[in-house]
Amino acid sequence: MTGTAKIGVFGTGSVGRTVGAKLAELGHAVVIGTRDPAATLARTDSDHFGNPPFKVWLEAHPKVHLKTFAEAAAEAELLVNATVGHGAIPALEAAGAANLAGKVLLDISNPLDFSKGFPPFLSVCNTDSLGEQIQRAFPELRVVKTLNTVTAAVMVNPKLVAGGDHTIFVSGNDAGAKKTATEVLQSFGWTDIVDLGDITTARGTEMYLPLWVRLMSATKTPMFSIKVVR
Amino acid sequence: MTGTAKIGVFGTGSVGRTVGAKLAELGHAVVIGTRDPAATLARTDSDHFGNPPFKVWLEAHPKVHLKTFAEAAAEAELLVNATVGHGAIPALEAAGAANLAGKVLLDISNPLDFSKGFPPFLSVCNTDSLGEQIQRAFPELRVVKTLNTVTAAVMVNPKLVAGGDHTIFVSGNDAGAKKTATEVLQSFGWTDIVDLGDITTARGTEMYLPLWVRLMSATKTPMFSIKVVR
Repeated sequence: MTGTAKIGVFGTGSVGRTVGAKLAELGHAVVIGTRDPAATLARTDSDHFGNPPFKVWLEAHPKVHLKTFAEAAAEAELLVNATVGHGAIPALEAAGAANLAGKVLLDISNPLDFSKGFPPFLSVCNTDSLGEQIQRAFPELRVVKTLNTVTAAVMVNPKLVAGGDHTIFVSGNDAGAKKTATEVLQSFGWTDIVDLGDITTARGTEMYLPLWVRLMSATKTPMFSIKVVR
Repeated sequence: MTGTAKIGVFGTGSVGRTVGAKLAELGHAVVIGTRDPAATLARTDSDHFGNPPFKVWLEAHPKVHLKTFAEAAAEAELLVNATVGHGAIPALEAAGAANLAGKVLLDISNPLDFSKGFPPFLSVCNTDSLGEQIQRAFPELRVVKTLNTVTAAVMVNPKLVAGGDHTIFVSGNDAGAKKTATEVLQSFGWTDIVDLGDITTARGTEMYLPLWVRLMSATKTPMFSIKVVR
């Protein structure tokens, strides 16, 4: 990926907003996808994380547009899945396989289940992963699991932690897709990018989340990361 | 723990040998525990990792003694579980609850299952962990999960990687036991020791293993670790 691209970002939460805003700031044409744009814009309450209503955020980011999952996917050259974990497959189904075929999807979500409170558990793990589920459900999508090991603010600005001296991972079956992902990561400021291998290695980064949530408790901040030292 | 102690190390594989040798080198009285010492000493083949027969190793480490799990536990002030994951509970049962009560156990094992080949999966994870299973099975044992995020050589000599500038974790319900664990870790050279919380946080470090095994493949060496940067 050279220059700017048409990018569809699935998810209107803090991750979708943070990544969408950064991609727009970098000059890309960003469309955020949601199930029902009118319903998303009609919300007037902050979400349970304290984020303002989407309409307020969107007014502050006039270059970003809000459309349906299908519209966002149809127009996009590159896709980002920033839904909550259990929302990923339904969002992609709503987008439609024909709108996804051949495109690169950066899956930055985690299959966290908070239904039993904190700490969350994983809704899939050990012998499978959300990244693999997405790849199996949409064989023509070129899925790259990445960025799911850090909080949204650090995803798009790794220099916020230790001057950027830490590690991010990519997992995926398609070398070209991982090259595109790497270019996006580099545009965010990432310098230590480890290719873990095929999409089954998404188990590794998704299963790191239980350590991540405990580290967040221990360090009393989500503003941390890990550096692989060798 | 100040000065030297009587330490029982469960497990005759490379982890038990490496940790046992280091503890003996530090002046502790080390007894390695095994199910059947005569059978362990009778083996003449290298194991499937290429380690020489235990008898050969023991002759090179004359300060270390080999006894049954029960004898090793009865004499010890501090215990280390360095069995393979599925061997932990059987070894502790063989040691006997009465020989364990009130003692600190450093559980440095991982519940890795290689029965389906590489990569291994975890035999317990997500809503439970081996550390918790051990603590539940032996309520009077003071279990601290630690060191399970690095290969044996790095456990006892963190300076082998990046001059020691990386992180190790402790999980456990007993503050005094974690203090003892921390002193042992410091005697090995660890400086960045993160207390993750109670024994349920062992899920975090055990579930890091799927990432560890993929990092080992990607970096082509087990001589690495992670540094938590904040």
